[in-house]
Amino acid sequence: MQSLSSSCSRNGLAVKSSLIEPDGGALVDLVVPESKRGVKISEAEALPKVKLTKIDLEWVHVVSEGWASPLKGFMRENEYLQSLHFNCLRMENGSLVNMSLPIVLAIDDEVKENIGGSGSVALVGPDGDLVAILSSIEIYKHNKEERIARTWGTTAPGLPYVEEVITPAGNWLIGGDLVVLKPIKYNDGLDHYRLSPQQLRKEFDRRQADAVFAFQLRNPVHNGHALLMNDTRRRLLEMGYKNPILLLHPLGGFTKADDVPLDVRMEQHSKVLEDGVLDPETTIVSIFPSPMHYAGPTEVQWHAKARINAGANFYIVGRDPAGMGHPTEKRDLYDPDHGKKVLSMAPGLEKLNILPFRVAAYDTVAKKMAFFDPSRAKDFLFISGTKMRTYARTGENPPDGFMCPGGWEVLVKYYESLQAEDSTLKQTVPA
Amino acid sequence: MQSLSSSCSRNGLAVKSSLIEPDGGALVDLVVPESKRGVKISEAEALPKVKLTKIDLEWVHVVSEGWASPLKGFMRENEYLQSLHFNCLRMENGSLVNMSLPIVLAIDDEVKENIGGSGSVALVGPDGDLVAILSSIEIYKHNKEERIARTWGTTAPGLPYVEEVITPAGNWLIGGDLVVLKPIKYNDGLDHYRLSPQQLRKEFDRRQADAVFAFQLRNPVHNGHALLMNDTRRRLLEMGYKNPILLLHPLGGFTKADDVPLDVRMEQHSKVLEDGVLDPETTIVSIFPSPMHYAGPTEVQWHAKARINAGANFYIVGRDPAGMGHPTEKRDLYDPDHGKKVLSMAPGLEKLNILPFRVAAYDTVAKKMAFFDPSRAKDFLFISGTKMRTYARTGENPPDGFMCPGGWEVLVKYYESLQAEDSTLKQTVPA
Repeated sequence: MQSLSSSCSRNGLAVKSSLIEPDGGALVDLVVPESKRGVKISEAEALPKVKLTKIDLEWVHVVSEGWASPLKGFMRENEYLQSLHFNCLRMENGSLVNMSLPIVLAIDDEVKENIGGSGSVALVGPDGDLVAILSSIEIYKHNKEERIARTWGTTAPGLPYVEEVITPAGNWLIGGDLVVLKPIKYNDGLDHYRLSPQQLRKEFDRRQADAVFAFQLRNPVHNGHALLMNDTRRRLLEMGYKNPILLLHPLGGFTKADDVPLDVRMEQHSKVLEDGVLDPETTIVSIFPSPMHYAGPTEVQWHAKARINAGANFYIVGRDPAGMGHPTEKRDLYDPDHGKKVLSMAPGLEKLNILPFRVAAYDTVAKKMAFFDPSRAKDFLFISGTKMRTYARTGENPPDGFMCPGGWEVLVKYYESLQAEDSTLKQTVPA
Repeated sequence: MQSLSSSCSRNGLAVKSSLIEPDGGALVDLVVPESKRGVKISEAEALPKVKLTKIDLEWVHVVSEGWASPLKGFMRENEYLQSLHFNCLRMENGSLVNMSLPIVLAIDDEVKENIGGSGSVALVGPDGDLVAILSSIEIYKHNKEERIARTWGTTAPGLPYVEEVITPAGNWLIGGDLVVLKPIKYNDGLDHYRLSPQQLRKEFDRRQADAVFAFQLRNPVHNGHALLMNDTRRRLLEMGYKNPILLLHPLGGFTKADDVPLDVRMEQHSKVLEDGVLDPETTIVSIFPSPMHYAGPTEVQWHAKARINAGANFYIVGRDPAGMGHPTEKRDLYDPDHGKKVLSMAPGLEKLNILPFRVAAYDTVAKKMAFFDPSRAKDFLFISGTKMRTYARTGENPPDGFMCPGGWEVLVKYYESLQAEDSTLKQTVPA
């Protein structure tokens, strides 16, 4: 057990909590100080421009706040190759930090030509606003096939991130040091949920947490999740921690089309806390701004690593994390056990406590979500995401005790709105 | 610079040279001592049998002699996953050793069923002879698509090792501890070239080498290679080494159909030494028994790592090591510079001195192989493997000074024999 303390570096950029050190020792913060903003904006205006997609901007956000510490910008080729081949980066002192996903920015031939010999470029948001400067740039080939094969372990067509991001992208990658002109905001009514790693670390300190356990999710919270989180808290108390805090940390970036959208999920999560399924006193709900790759064992390392930087020293991992069905075959893309196995062996994650969880399912006898008991397997009902969506879409209620009523209502409303939209669309299409 | 010394462990299994420690600290030697052979053979006879292919047997050979130290058998799932995702294995003391290729044994459903609950199996060679015992076995799924994608960075059809080994293999992998009943021999007249890592280390000690530089190859040696090897020796002498020894180390296992076969290459290499292109006094020619994957940056790590175990502390790496053309696109499968970049950053290879080499080409002015000088690029002629084979096949002589005459003659004879075979075949096929 570790005692609570915190220290701030003199330049104010690095915030440390003694629970767990950020990767590389200090949290990266790439937002230009207010006093220098004007100068930097003028500088950016004079540079060749690179237009960002919505998802590029999500990565700018992620990197600028230090979720990917010690990464200080989009990857240059040396970092890209290490990430692709080793899922980790070697630091100057010889130590390794985990980095399983390539965090890269693609450009096409035309943009490359326009950059010419310039050593820096300005990054322009999807709405045309100046967002950031990338300096000491390096441009190198974007071998999409190799990137996809090594990241996903398949090149089958139909991977959501590949179709959305990689296939339409240019054949070059541009790496460099990032400086962001002002904090990235989305103005979607959810920005107050978007706490940076620095803000989260401060909040953990303020609450005098002596353990922080992170739960990554991109789905509505059902009572099985809640059971698991509450059980984890119980185990941490048993281990002697006095004040374990849950970081309920839904992913806020790109997700595939049939996932529940962020705003609906945030409303659902609020209800779960309102209904008392999770204790607001010991829970922090915040948005993890990363886009989703659906890259299973490779991606779960990123999910865990980013939470180290946010100050969590425990990470809960379940069945088939960041997984999905194989896009062209009738099977899971990844072995459901590989995620936690790979996570537990990943270079650079040694300092994080990995908590693999037992499977929860609906106990039809006790009429509640419970840890699966193989000795009476037939009493348990597994309610998959697909099944849950079918319930919500058809207006059928899930079994009592599957999800708190307030949370369920949010989902039903969402799927009703989808169907309304759908029928409106059908009506407007001429027969 | 390191001084020469050697130490033998008390049990006689581990041989150390102070030039470089084997991975894991001690060289693995899995050949059963003569005194216990009878007992082990009886034991093997009673076990469920697993039939090996020719290439499986090459891996048994590789593992049994400690080229893959600290690996003590075919990989279990934990080792397989680490190899696939991280290209390295974590040791019990937390240190990492490089292990970029999965060294695995595949079995099909029928063999798996036949093994049943047995904790050990006997491995049977392609000729039906008992070869080895695999104990404390673990059987796990062989996800071929994922293995191929993560190892080669492509799943395109036409990868030689995939077509020869993986596609026809079973859907299960069996890992466990290996014991080999007697040293693996091929009886092809080349076994005297097959020095084990232990034998090589002894030979380096006997020659009082204070530096050993390994050159991996699967092609005939031309004068560009020789220039490079001699230049490396010169550089090592300049660095203060007194007795650098070259390990000329042709790969002896599976190669693709259009590569020059091992026996022809060995004859060619002999001529190169006879003709004085390389100095026999400071060169050891030996066969590296591994099969070839043609997996570029992933495989070159294996090639280097195995040479650490053989006692080489310098490794020469060139353009596009272990690379080949993309099987379905008109381009190199790998970026020609990625091999040396990845090698220089690979976890577990820090103790090995990587020597990237400059490109040699035929200097049409000086009429010899020389280091490429970009300032007079037009004077240089690049003679690819394909071009060399075309010369040899058509009976045309390559430019003077490309290869020593004795070595060239070996190749011409080989390609003549191929054509004779070809025309014999054509004659026997009814029109």
